[in-house]
Amino acid sequence: MSKRSFASDNNAGIHAEVIEAIAAANDGHVIAYGDDPFTARAVKLFQKHFGRDTAVYFVYGGTGANVLGLKAITKPHEAIICAETAHVNVDECGAPENFTGCKLLTVSTPDGKLRVEQIKPLLHGVGVEHHVQPRVISVSQATEMGTVYTKKELKTLADFAHDHNLLLHVDGARLANAAVSLKASLKEITAEAGVDVLSFGGTKNGMMYGEAVIFFNKNFGGDFKYIRKQGMHLPSKMRYISAQFQALLSDDLWRRSAAHSNRMAQLLGSELAKIQQVQLTQPVEANGVFAVIPRKYVPQLQKKYFFYVWNEEISEVRLMASFDTTENDVRDFVAFLRKTVQ
Amino acid sequence: MSKRSFASDNNAGIHAEVIEAIAAANDGHVIAYGDDPFTARAVKLFQKHFGRDTAVYFVYGGTGANVLGLKAITKPHEAIICAETAHVNVDECGAPENFTGCKLLTVSTPDGKLRVEQIKPLLHGVGVEHHVQPRVISVSQATEMGTVYTKKELKTLADFAHDHNLLLHVDGARLANAAVSLKASLKEITAEAGVDVLSFGGTKNGMMYGEAVIFFNKNFGGDFKYIRKQGMHLPSKMRYISAQFQALLSDDLWRRSAAHSNRMAQLLGSELAKIQQVQLTQPVEANGVFAVIPRKYVPQLQKKYFFYVWNEEISEVRLMASFDTTENDVRDFVAFLRKTVQ
Amino acid sequence: MSKRSFASDNNAGIHAEVIEAIAAANDGHVIAYGDDPFTARAVKLFQKHFGRDTAVYFVYGGTGANVLGLKAITKPHEAIICAETAHVNVDECGAPENFTGCKLLTVSTPDGKLRVEQIKPLLHGVGVEHHVQPRVISVSQATEMGTVYTKKELKTLADFAHDHNLLLHVDGARLANAAVSLKASLKEITAEAGVDVLSFGGTKNGMMYGEAVIFFNKNFGGDFKYIRKQGMHLPSKMRYISAQFQALLSDDLWRRSAAHSNRMAQLLGSELAKIQQVQLTQPVEANGVFAVIPRKYVPQLQKKYFFYVWNEEISEVRLMASFDTTENDVRDFVAFLRKTVQ
Amino acid sequence: MSKRSFASDNNAGIHAEVIEAIAAANDGHVIAYGDDPFTARAVKLFQKHFGRDTAVYFVYGGTGANVLGLKAITKPHEAIICAETAHVNVDECGAPENFTGCKLLTVSTPDGKLRVEQIKPLLHGVGVEHHVQPRVISVSQATEMGTVYTKKELKTLADFAHDHNLLLHVDGARLANAAVSLKASLKEITAEAGVDVLSFGGTKNGMMYGEAVIFFNKNFGGDFKYIRKQGMHLPSKMRYISAQFQALLSDDLWRRSAAHSNRMAQLLGSELAKIQQVQLTQPVEANGVFAVIPRKYVPQLQKKYFFYVWNEEISEVRLMASFDTTENDVRDFVAFLRKTVQ
Repeated sequence: MSKRSFASDNNAGIHAEVIEAIAAANDGHVIAYGDDPFTARAVKLFQKHFGRDTAVYFVYGGTGANVLGLKAITKPHEAIICAETAHVNVDECGAPENFTGCKLLTVSTPDGKLRVEQIKPLLHGVGVEHHVQPRVISVSQATEMGTVYTKKELKTLADFAHDHNLLLHVDGARLANAAVSLKASLKEITAEAGVDVLSFGGTKNGMMYGEAVIFFNKNFGGDFKYIRKQGMHLPSKMRYISAQFQALLSDDLWRRSAAHSNRMAQLLGSELAKIQQVQLTQPVEANGVFAVIPRKYVPQLQKKYFFYVWNEEISEVRLMASFDTTENDVRDFVAFLRKTVQ
Repeated sequence: MSKRSFASDNNAGIHAEVIEAIAAANDGHVIAYGDDPFTARAVKLFQKHFGRDTAVYFVYGGTGANVLGLKAITKPHEAIICAETAHVNVDECGAPENFTGCKLLTVSTPDGKLRVEQIKPLLHGVGVEHHVQPRVISVSQATEMGTVYTKKELKTLADFAHDHNLLLHVDGARLANAAVSLKASLKEITAEAGVDVLSFGGTKNGMMYGEAVIFFNKNFGGDFKYIRKQGMHLPSKMRYISAQFQALLSDDLWRRSAAHSNRMAQLLGSELAKIQQVQLTQPVEANGVFAVIPRKYVPQLQKKYFFYVWNEEISEVRLMASFDTTENDVRDFVAFLRKTVQ
Repeated sequence: MSKRSFASDNNAGIHAEVIEAIAAANDGHVIAYGDDPFTARAVKLFQKHFGRDTAVYFVYGGTGANVLGLKAITKPHEAIICAETAHVNVDECGAPENFTGCKLLTVSTPDGKLRVEQIKPLLHGVGVEHHVQPRVISVSQATEMGTVYTKKELKTLADFAHDHNLLLHVDGARLANAAVSLKASLKEITAEAGVDVLSFGGTKNGMMYGEAVIFFNKNFGGDFKYIRKQGMHLPSKMRYISAQFQALLSDDLWRRSAAHSNRMAQLLGSELAKIQQVQLTQPVEANGVFAVIPRKYVPQLQKKYFFYVWNEEISEVRLMASFDTTENDVRDFVAFLRKTVQ
Repeated sequence: MSKRSFASDNNAGIHAEVIEAIAAANDGHVIAYGDDPFTARAVKLFQKHFGRDTAVYFVYGGTGANVLGLKAITKPHEAIICAETAHVNVDECGAPENFTGCKLLTVSTPDGKLRVEQIKPLLHGVGVEHHVQPRVISVSQATEMGTVYTKKELKTLADFAHDHNLLLHVDGARLANAAVSLKASLKEITAEAGVDVLSFGGTKNGMMYGEAVIFFNKNFGGDFKYIRKQGMHLPSKMRYISAQFQALLSDDLWRRSAAHSNRMAQLLGSELAKIQQVQLTQPVEANGVFAVIPRKYVPQLQKKYFFYVWNEEISEVRLMASFDTTENDVRDFVAFLRKTVQ
């Protein structure tokens, strides 16, 4: 199997600047659990990027970030509205329901993006005790389908949410890719768009582990330190997550890496579009490419390049570019694909 | 503040061999979530140390390891018997109750060790639906009080457990220190002593993050992959935990590091014993030293050396040695203490 | 407002034979929590109706019966497949998710009935830890849409379930109405159809309170006494539920009452069918009638007869007949409706 | 076995006035789930007894009342302080932990009563995320040991609670017995003593089923209607609980019944005190009598009079008087006991 595939941005390794930052942090003793200078500096850097009044907490991973962030803003009789394809709905083994106690109300949406019109019908039953009470709209940015909400789309959702006593949560495992795609700062597509709570992902963008939960409205983060600890996501040697984030948010590393993976996805998408037997199913807006490849070719392709079949029914596959994907990786894959389908 | 204190073995950094192993693993793409060659090799190494038939799963941290391991062997109407001082009882912000649903039945025990005679009275009510049903005895090895169960003590607890339809869980955040203290292999004090489920800690012994949940009885691990994922403890870039564990379990690193920290604790304990104003409160059997230091000296000491007051009522402090503690660190601290209390 | 409306079978009172049975049980002391002769007799009667090897437990109400029965056969990382309209999905304020920890996987089905073809696509992902693992198919009999599964339809679901390591749960809040509709015994449409766990409802059929959870496969009921107590549904003065069930299952009271309410629904349905402005939306198979009534007439009708609008979008209303509904009640309502819409 | 024993006030039947009220409520249709005139009247009556600004909710039973009332005022990372002997700690099969997610912090107290001095040491760790955060002091009134908090004792606890950001919860399964014992109104020992949340029991005082959760501080009851429904304790035919409470709170029935059972307990206690082989272990302040009876006589006594051995170690038994206990019941039992121990 090839050393670099297109299966997942989680299959990539760690960026060299990140691993250097870890090594540099490995000096002497510091207080565990986050009361250390590395964490203080990283939090400041986050506040620089996301706004001075944000509350920032680091956790081990993305599922933890989503679930615990949602737990901080819900009660168990409330409900979380999300796309059917949302990571919180399909890829977290029921953790959101299990740990928040909430029901997920899902909306079928082909491009992975929620729209206000789809949410309105879920608000029947507000105030009636037989039914769960919608409290959060949770969107993924970029979405699991490789698409990106525009600033205006986000703002529309946020305004609708706030007009209806709802909050807007963003699963930003690939927020960096979205920001690059929109040519926006991190703040413009979060704080300024009206987001209330954010999971900001590092792992899919070249970190080893570590995600951040960010509260833009300090009303909601007050208990989070307890929620994080009880949620089993308070890292003891916190400094090593903080050092990674410091690297990611310095010298534009987050942007350079995301820009690269987006560009590689663009290249891959445009090359695939030239192959007659292959149909792209989504616009390529971040670092993912979705395409229908005739079923009969899939096993042979997977022998050399492991990747996931996203939708078995129509033989749609997902191909992800990473910070370390090279043009040659793309061209080799496309050449192999071309040869296979001929 | 001194670069190396005695506050916690979590305040230390990462062992050089561990950080090298991480860097060496940072090569190309591998499948995420554990289906990679690093993890396969690490699991084999665990099986070499703990027994061929053990099931091994890696998680991010120690609270996760304890809680999810316990969840795998309990139902919510059951109870977990532990020492009042147990990490699961006092230092996990209620995560065990919250995520297993179980009640913790605690036993007051000055040296942190459970004994069969203390457990027997908790078994009244077996079969009566009004009461939670005891299912697990959970012990810490080494204990939170720096003491170590002998092989025979463990075996006695395991036999009692198995005779009463109970299971034996070990919180082994400092199992390496216990093994060194007992001059035993890891297998002798776990599999061979009758332990059913173990949390094996890496972080307190020189790793960056990562703990292992080990089932010695494969009946109990069947669902663990789901429990881990739903429990938000399935690391995506698993290879970096696996690589660390590979380093720890190779070339006796686990033993060298634990032996060193135990030795430093011995040195510290014996030096403290010479100071008239200080009284050791527990035998020094692992890498922790517990001592009463007159209350009036504590603030001045903490200015230079941060450490925790374990028991406010009697001014008992906890001092932990780490893999990187030096003889000079000990002697400097003792000299400063001596000077302070004169 | 009229003394008897068509809003809900829960709005009706208690059948005279039930209230007599309660009074008759009110004699002296018996042991609380179910260890009494009334309960012993009631359980025997259940076993006569449902099969000798069934395990029977009484609880306070229907939501408790559903949720705790489901909890007894699931683990938190598993999933429950049900109709979008299922009571467990829409009318229990998220209790199933909250107390079982499971996700509900819902199927859109206009008549409230699940079919195998709709369930198959939900079984992708079996064995993959990122996804919840389907474990139960839960159906309502009669359904929330007033329809009834035939014996063959149930058997087909049960066989499919058992072939795929799934269990079949029945929410039988209106099982009596279904049995009457199918001219079947209670056993034929449960034990003999392959049902694994049943909520058997008394309240909607003339009892004051009390439902039964019945396990047809004794493998699954073992822990239920603890689940019920921990689930806050172990009635202390159990005899009064048992006495009610004894009345219900004696002298065919369950059948007489259900047959009557079904008949009244038939009458109501056939009368409504004659009114041009009203369209029935479901076949009348049990004691519920679903009909579209032009929106403009609804408020005036509700002034005299309170009822629920089931589907706001199409102005579909739900009308339920009860054990105490009279022919005159039906004719008065129809006359009033006729007058209103003229 | 005798028709009336001293095993439990739950073994008694229903008071005649209660059963009449049920029958009287059985007239026509009313809206289910509490939106009915019976419930409106009952709530008013509660407000008359407990204060105009109280929020009152009915549930099926006592465990539900305690657990859901506590859930309304806690978050899962908080803790509930109670006596080791508290019903919430020992007799609810872990429901409080399971449904609130909270840890119970227990205090050993021979007479079942908490005192401020015992609570203070549990407040170490406030603000530290590793530890659960105490939020509620929960007391039973009368206690499980048959003792009664004075108004002053309650007030002291309430004041301490409120000074430390804690709330005071009362498990009032036997509040009527306490009020009679203290010659106080229900309001004096709840609202006026500073209680925040109360479970008010009907079942142990002659009702069939039904308890009330009362919030004296309306800040805390806002979500309770959802918590009750999700907690599976929203009775559909609510009117029958309301009618019972109406009877209980009218014409002093609650007081007459409790006064009678207290008096019978007094008689029993004073008679037992005359028997040399028997030692009372607690003052008789409500309707329970605790006494050591030599172990060897217990089985013979239990043949005729079923009762519970409360403390196996010292052969302490619990004897409860009920609203329907007669003087003859007491004298017969005492005579039989006397004969047995001679």
